[in-house]
Amino acid sequence: VVSNATLQRFYQEVRHQTLRLTENLSVEDMVVQSMPEASPAKWHLAHTTWFFEEFILRERDKNYPRFDERYRYLFNSYYEAAGDRYPRPDRGLLTRPDLSTVLRYRAYVDSCMEVLIAAGMHDDISQEHEFFRDIIVTGLHHEMQHQELLLTDILHLLSFNPLFPSLYRAETPASPRAGALTMQTCGGGLVPVGAREEGFSYDCEKPCHSVFLQAYRLARRAVTNGEWLEFIDDGGYRNPLLWLADGWETCQRNNWQTPLYWRQVDGQWHQFGLDGLQALNFAAPVCHISYYEADAYARWAGKRLPTEQEWEHALANAPVEGNFLEFPYWRPQACTTDTAENGIAQAYGDVWEWTRSPYTAYPGFKPERGPLQEYNGKFMANQFVLKGGSCVTPKRQMRATYRNFFFPHQRWQFSGLRLAEDA
Amino acid sequence: VVSNATLQRFYQEVRHQTLRLTENLSVEDMVVQSMPEASPAKWHLAHTTWFFEEFILRERDKNYPRFDERYRYLFNSYYEAAGDRYPRPDRGLLTRPDLSTVLRYRAYVDSCMEVLIAAGMHDDISQEHEFFRDIIVTGLHHEMQHQELLLTDILHLLSFNPLFPSLYRAETPASPRAGALTMQTCGGGLVPVGAREEGFSYDCEKPCHSVFLQAYRLARRAVTNGEWLEFIDDGGYRNPLLWLADGWETCQRNNWQTPLYWRQVDGQWHQFGLDGLQALNFAAPVCHISYYEADAYARWAGKRLPTEQEWEHALANAPVEGNFLEFPYWRPQACTTDTAENGIAQAYGDVWEWTRSPYTAYPGFKPERGPLQEYNGKFMANQFVLKGGSCVTPKRQMRATYRNFFFPHQRWQFSGLRLAEDA
Amino acid sequence: VVSNATLQRFYQEVRHQTLRLTENLSVEDMVVQSMPEASPAKWHLAHTTWFFEEFILRERDKNYPRFDERYRYLFNSYYEAAGDRYPRPDRGLLTRPDLSTVLRYRAYVDSCMEVLIAAGMHDDISQEHEFFRDIIVTGLHHEMQHQELLLTDILHLLSFNPLFPSLYRAETPASPRAGALTMQTCGGGLVPVGAREEGFSYDCEKPCHSVFLQAYRLARRAVTNGEWLEFIDDGGYRNPLLWLADGWETCQRNNWQTPLYWRQVDGQWHQFGLDGLQALNFAAPVCHISYYEADAYARWAGKRLPTEQEWEHALANAPVEGNFLEFPYWRPQACTTDTAENGIAQAYGDVWEWTRSPYTAYPGFKPERGPLQEYNGKFMANQFVLKGGSCVTPKRQMRATYRNFFFPHQRWQFSGLRLAEDA
Amino acid sequence: VVSNATLQRFYQEVRHQTLRLTENLSVEDMVVQSMPEASPAKWHLAHTTWFFEEFILRERDKNYPRFDERYRYLFNSYYEAAGDRYPRPDRGLLTRPDLSTVLRYRAYVDSCMEVLIAAGMHDDISQEHEFFRDIIVTGLHHEMQHQELLLTDILHLLSFNPLFPSLYRAETPASPRAGALTMQTCGGGLVPVGAREEGFSYDCEKPCHSVFLQAYRLARRAVTNGEWLEFIDDGGYRNPLLWLADGWETCQRNNWQTPLYWRQVDGQWHQFGLDGLQALNFAAPVCHISYYEADAYARWAGKRLPTEQEWEHALANAPVEGNFLEFPYWRPQACTTDTAENGIAQAYGDVWEWTRSPYTAYPGFKPERGPLQEYNGKFMANQFVLKGGSCVTPKRQMRATYRNFFFPHQRWQFSGLRLAEDA
Repeated sequence: VVSNATLQRFYQEVRHQTLRLTENLSVEDMVVQSMPEASPAKWHLAHTTWFFEEFILRERDKNYPRFDERYRYLFNSYYEAAGDRYPRPDRGLLTRPDLSTVLRYRAYVDSCMEVLIAAGMHDDISQEHEFFRDIIVTGLHHEMQHQELLLTDILHLLSFNPLFPSLYRAETPASPRAGALTMQTCGGGLVPVGAREEGFSYDCEKPCHSVFLQAYRLARRAVTNGEWLEFIDDGGYRNPLLWLADGWETCQRNNWQTPLYWRQVDGQWHQFGLDGLQALNFAAPVCHISYYEADAYARWAGKRLPTEQEWEHALANAPVEGNFLEFPYWRPQACTTDTAENGIAQAYGDVWEWTRSPYTAYPGFKPERGPLQEYNGKFMANQFVLKGGSCVTPKRQMRATYRNFFFPHQRWQFSGLRLAEDA
Repeated sequence: VVSNATLQRFYQEVRHQTLRLTENLSVEDMVVQSMPEASPAKWHLAHTTWFFEEFILRERDKNYPRFDERYRYLFNSYYEAAGDRYPRPDRGLLTRPDLSTVLRYRAYVDSCMEVLIAAGMHDDISQEHEFFRDIIVTGLHHEMQHQELLLTDILHLLSFNPLFPSLYRAETPASPRAGALTMQTCGGGLVPVGAREEGFSYDCEKPCHSVFLQAYRLARRAVTNGEWLEFIDDGGYRNPLLWLADGWETCQRNNWQTPLYWRQVDGQWHQFGLDGLQALNFAAPVCHISYYEADAYARWAGKRLPTEQEWEHALANAPVEGNFLEFPYWRPQACTTDTAENGIAQAYGDVWEWTRSPYTAYPGFKPERGPLQEYNGKFMANQFVLKGGSCVTPKRQMRATYRNFFFPHQRWQFSGLRLAEDA
Repeated sequence: VVSNATLQRFYQEVRHQTLRLTENLSVEDMVVQSMPEASPAKWHLAHTTWFFEEFILRERDKNYPRFDERYRYLFNSYYEAAGDRYPRPDRGLLTRPDLSTVLRYRAYVDSCMEVLIAAGMHDDISQEHEFFRDIIVTGLHHEMQHQELLLTDILHLLSFNPLFPSLYRAETPASPRAGALTMQTCGGGLVPVGAREEGFSYDCEKPCHSVFLQAYRLARRAVTNGEWLEFIDDGGYRNPLLWLADGWETCQRNNWQTPLYWRQVDGQWHQFGLDGLQALNFAAPVCHISYYEADAYARWAGKRLPTEQEWEHALANAPVEGNFLEFPYWRPQACTTDTAENGIAQAYGDVWEWTRSPYTAYPGFKPERGPLQEYNGKFMANQFVLKGGSCVTPKRQMRATYRNFFFPHQRWQFSGLRLAEDA
Repeated sequence: VVSNATLQRFYQEVRHQTLRLTENLSVEDMVVQSMPEASPAKWHLAHTTWFFEEFILRERDKNYPRFDERYRYLFNSYYEAAGDRYPRPDRGLLTRPDLSTVLRYRAYVDSCMEVLIAAGMHDDISQEHEFFRDIIVTGLHHEMQHQELLLTDILHLLSFNPLFPSLYRAETPASPRAGALTMQTCGGGLVPVGAREEGFSYDCEKPCHSVFLQAYRLARRAVTNGEWLEFIDDGGYRNPLLWLADGWETCQRNNWQTPLYWRQVDGQWHQFGLDGLQALNFAAPVCHISYYEADAYARWAGKRLPTEQEWEHALANAPVEGNFLEFPYWRPQACTTDTAENGIAQAYGDVWEWTRSPYTAYPGFKPERGPLQEYNGKFMANQFVLKGGSCVTPKRQMRATYRNFFFPHQRWQFSGLRLAEDA
C-alpha cells in the first residue's frame, strides 16, 4: 500500500511534468487541433485536471465547488457515464477558456487534491479511502498517458507548418547504418501472461492467465530507417502482394510512400520531429508507421510480427530501461547495444512496437468498477496491441504487461516494429 | 484421395446447384448491385466460372482459348496476382455481357472442365495432377461460398424494393416463444484447434495446434427474435454503456434500432426475407445483426460471446446437421430440440454465430502456395470470426473448423449469436 | 387550338417514339442506374407514363383505377405536391416491376388516354377540358425531354463498360478539320426575348419581355473537336488563370484532361458514343463538356460565351433545322455549311450550346398553375442556360425560346459551345 | 486624383482600424479556423499585409527585402498568378508565425509603405506611379473587406463555444415589433447601372451600362426577426413548395429550422452575436440567413427578392448612411425611420440584402489588368449578389454600385433581405 507521502510526491511530480512539456510551446500551439483524433495541448491540460475533479473531488464530496460548472461538459473526453460531452472533433474551436484560465484551473484542483491527500494521512484505512487512493493513482497514470499524447499531437500539428518549427535543439550523434539483425530464440510452452495483483496496472492487463506458446524467435533490435529504405527501394509501397487487403486500400487511398514524417530535401531524406527537420538517421528505429506498413514490411522480410504474448514472455524479466520521455531526446535513437550478442535490446523506449495481436479481452477480464469501467473495455475492437513504450513515454508508466492499442491505419504515434518468426 | 468419378459428380452437383438458386430471379434482379460490398447474381455466375478458367484451364494449358479474353479483367474479384480488375463498386454497371452470354460462358467452361476431369482418370498420379485436382476442389468450395453470397446479396437488393418481392412461397410453421435458455458447461485445458490434414479445409484453418482454454459455459441454442425484442424494449439501442465505442458510433451514425430487415407494419413486427415480408417469428434465431449488436446484447444479458476456440472445442465431435441451403427454408427456423436437456443445439445452419475472436493467423500459418495465396491471409485484420453456417450455407461446406469472417459493422449476412460465460 | 385528332396523333407518335429508342437495349441495360443524376431507361418509361396517370387520368376522375397503387410513390420524380417519392439515387435498385410489367403499364395507360382523348372530341369546349388538354400537351413535351435523357443516361451507363458496346452501326463520313471560324455581327438595342402566347412553351420561357443588348458577334459554327485539341495541347486543362475558381477546383478534383468520353487508343484519340468507340472526328463539334470547360475555352480563345438573350435574338427567325434525334446519327456531325459566308449555322441540333446566362426567372415570371407549378421555377439557382438542342433532342421540341439548364459541372449531356464577343 | 497626403492618411486609418478590431480578442481567438470558408484573425492580419508586400513593394522593386521569404507562400489567398499557396482549409494549423511576429510583419510593411507613399509626393506623375497608387487604394479597400470578414469569422468561431463569449458590452435599446411593412413604387425604363469612372470601384462594377427595367415596388425596410418568426410558426422550414430545389435539399441536409445564430433558452428566442447571447430583438432585421431562406421567405410572403439592378436604381441617389462598422453596435438594429412614409429606409448598413441576381459579368466587363485580374472575375458562377453593406462593413467601402457576392447556402455573413414585387 502506497503511503500518503509517497502519493503526494507522485502527484506533484506527474502534475509538474505535464506543465514542463509545454515550456517551448506558444499560446497558439496549445489551442489548435490538427485532426479529430488529436487534441490541443490546452485541452490535455484541462482534461487531465477534469479527471481529478470529476472522479475524486466531486465523487467524494457532492458539495465540492467546481472551478466552473461548465467544465464538466467541456472537458469530458469519452465517459458516457459522466454525462454529455463537447464534441471531440471540435475541441480545437474552444479558444475560451484561454490558457491562463486553464492554468488557474489546474492550480485550483491541485490545491484541493493536495489538501485531500494530506488529510488522508490521518484517516482510517477505510475501504472508501482505498477506493479513492486507487483512482488517484489511476488518474496519475492517466495523466502520464496524456503527457505522451500531448507531445504526439503537437508533433502532428507542427508537421503541417512549412516553417518546420522545433521545440528544442538536439545534438544528435551521427550514426552509421546499424549492424546486421540477428534473432533470439525463445522457448514456448504454457506461460503466464498479464499483470499480477501487486503494483499498478490497468484492468485490461488482468487477470494473469496461462497461454500456450510455440517456440519462436524475436529480433534483437527494432527495424531501422536504413532497413526501411531498402523496403522502399525494393518497391514495398507498390506491391499489393505484400499487404493486407485493408492495408493496401489505405496505402493507395492516402498515397503512402514513406513513413509519416519523412521529407525529401535536395534529394536527401529527412525526418521531421519535435527538434525540427533533421537528416534521416539510418541507424535509428523507423517510426510513425501504421500496423499495415509494419505487417507489409515483415512479409517482405520473410518474417512476421510477434504476438503480444511472445513479446511479453520474452521481456517478462528484463529491466525497464531505454530512451523515454525523461531523456534528452524526443526522437528515437540508434540502438547502442551490440545486437550480434545474446539478448533482446531496445525493447523499451524509442518506439512502440506493433504486435500482430488484436486488442481483446483476456479470459476472465472484468472491467474496472465505478466511473472507470469505460477506460479500456469499450475499445476492444479493430485495434492492435503495441508494446514497450516510446521516446515520449514516461518511464514510470512502462512495464512488460502494458498494452497500448491503436487502429491499424494510424501513424501519428511513435510506432515502429520488431520482427519475429517461428522457431 | 478423391477419385475422378467422385470429382466429376462433385463438380456437376455444385455447378448445377448455383444455377438452381437463380430460378426465380428476373434478368433485372441478376444485374443490379445494391452496395459496393455486394455483387450482382450475374457477376457471381461469371466469377465462379472465371475461377476455373483462370486457375485451372489457363494455368494447365497456356494455349487454352478463353471464352473471351476480356473476361480475365472483368471477372477477377481481388486477386492481385491475376492482374488488374474491373472496380468492385462498379460491378453493377456491367449490363454487358448479358445474362445469356454469361450462361454460355458457364457452359463453355463446364465442358472444358469435364473433359479435363475425365481425362485425368487415365493420368499418372503426378504431383502436378494432384496440384490441379486440389485447386478444382477449392474452386468448388469457393463456388459454394458464392452460392451463399448470391442469396445474401439478392436479399439485400430486394430489401430496397417497396413491393417486397418474394422468391418462393414458404409455409412457415407458427412457433410460440422459445423455452428458457440454459447453459452447457464445457471443460477447458490444453485442447487442439484447427483442421487436420485429411479432408478439405482452407489454409486459414491450419495448422491444427494447441490452445489453453479455461472452463466455460455455452448456451444450448441461439438468441431468439423474442429475446432480442426484450433487449430493444429495455433500451438496448439507446444505452452507450452496453456498446463498444466503435459500435456505438456506428449505431448512432446509421440510426440502428432493430436488426437489418425488421419492419413494423400496422404495429406488428415483420421480417423481410427471401420469402418476402413475414410476421416476425419470436422463436427463431435473431438474424442480420452486426458484431457490435451481438456484443452489446451479450453485455446486456450479463454474458459474453464465445471465442472461436470455445465454439470449435464444444462442437468438435458433433454431427453437422441443421437448416442449410438444401432445406426448404431460406430463413432461420425455431430450434426444435428441447434445450433444457443436455447438449448444444442449433450450432449448424440457421444463423452464423459471431465469436469474439478477431480473424487472425494460427501459429504456424502458411498461406496456400500458388495462385490462391491471397484467398484468406490478406483479410486477417479488422474482421471477426463466425462459426456454424446459416440457412443459406451449403451443408457440404460446413465443418467445426470452418472460419467465416466479416467486419463488425456488417449486417447483411445471415448472422446471429450464441451466448457464453466463464464457468 | 389543337384538334382532338391532332392531339391523338401527337400522343401516339411521341409514345411510340420513346419505345423505339429502346430497340437495341438489353433488359439489363434498361434497369441499371449509373449515377444519382441519371435514371434507368425502364424508369424513364414508367415515369413518363406516371405523368399521364397522375396528372390527367387521376386528376380528372378520382375513381380511376390505377394500374398499381404503389407506382404513385415509385415513379414520382420530384413533385413534392404529388406526395412522397422513392429516393432518386436508388432508382436503379428497382428490379421489380420488371420491364415487361412496365410495358404493360404503358399499354394500360395509353389505352385509357386514347379513350379520354377520343371522348374529348364530343365534349363541350369547357375550361376544364382546355386545362387537361394543355397538360396532355405538356406531358408529351415532358416525354420528349425524357427521350433525350434516356439516350443520354444510356450513353453514360455504357461508357463504364470496357467492352465498348454500341447500339447501332453508323457509317460516319470522314471529315477533314473544319474551315476557319468566322464571326457574324449582330445589332443590339431593345429587343424582345421569350415566348409569345401562341404555340407550346414552358412557363420559364414567358413572358415575352424587352431587354437591352449591345451589339455583339456570334461564331458561325460551334467549336470543333480539332479546335478543342489545340486548347488541350496548349495546356488549357493545366492553367488556372483560364478558369473560374469553382471550375478550376472541379477540374482538379476530378482530374479532367479531356471532354467526358474521349479515350486514347494506341496513341489515337477516340470518342465513345451510342455507336461505340469511334475515331475522333476533328470537324465535329466538341461534346460532353461542362460549363466550366466551355468558359475556360472561350477565355483561352480571347472570346466569351454568348448570353442566352444574344443567342435567342440572333436565331429568332431562323428555321429549326439540324441533326436531331430523328436523324440517323446520335453523334454530333461536322458542320456542312460554308461558315465563311454570312449567317449562323449549326445552331440547332448536334450539341446544346452553353450560354453565360444563369437560369433565372424572367421579369413577370409566373409558375404554371396546378400540379406543374414545380416544373421549372424551383430549379432557378446554380444552373446555366443551354440553347439549340442536340443530336438526341426530338426536333419537335425545339424552338428559339427553349431554355435548357444544367449545373456548370455536369458533362454527361450532349453539350458544346459557340463563341461570342462584343462588337 | 488623390493627393499623397490624403493617401497617407487613408493608409494609416485603414491599417489602424484593422488592429482596433482585435482589441478584445485573445491570442487563442486569433489563430483558430472554424471552417474552411473562414479564416483566422491572425491570417487576416497577415494576408492584408502580404497584399501590399506582394503587389506594391515587391512589384516596384525586385530587390525589396521581404520580411520573410516564406510568407509569400503562406499568406497568398487565391492568386494563382502569385504562385503556390498554403492550402486554405489548413490556415488554422499555422500556429507559427505567432501573433507577435505577425504584428511585427505589419509594422515592417507599414513603414516601407509609408516611406514609399511619402516619396511619391515628389515623383513625377508618371503612368507607373498612377498604376501603383491605384493598387494601394485597391489594397486599402481590400483590407476593409477583410475587416468585415475578420469580425464575421470571429463570430462564427465563438458561436461554437458553449460559454457564449462576448467581445463588448452593448446597451441595446429594447424595441417593440416593427410597424407594418409598406412598399415604395419605382419606375422602370432604360436606366444606367454600374460604376462610372470617377471614384474608386472594382472592375466587376464596370462598365456603366443600360438595362431595361419594368416598374417595380421595393419594401421600405428589411424583413425583421419578428416577421421571420411568423414564417417559422407557419411551417416555412417544413414546406418544400416554398423552396428552390437546391435550397430544400440544403435545408433538409443541415436541418435548418431558424437563422444561423438563433438559440432557444428557457423557451425564449435569443441570438448570439459579437456582444454575446442576447434576447432576440423582434424589430431588428433578420440576419445570418442564406439566399435559399430569403427566397423561400419571399415566396411565402407572396413577394420576391429584388434584382440587383432594381436595388441599385432605387438607391442610386440616396446618401450612404446607416449602422456600419464604425458605429457602436456590431449587431443589426431596428429601423428608426417611419417606414409608413415615402422613401426607402435601412438600405445601407445593418444587413447585406440578398438580391435574386446571380453574380455575372456586366456587358463589356474587362478584368483588372495586372496582378488583380483574379480579384472578381473568377468568382462569376454560382454566387448571388448582395447589396448595401452590414453593421460590420466599413462605411467608406459602401456605395450603390458595390456588388457583394456569396454562395446561396452560406449563412455566416451578416445577410438579410428586403422584399420586392412587380408594380
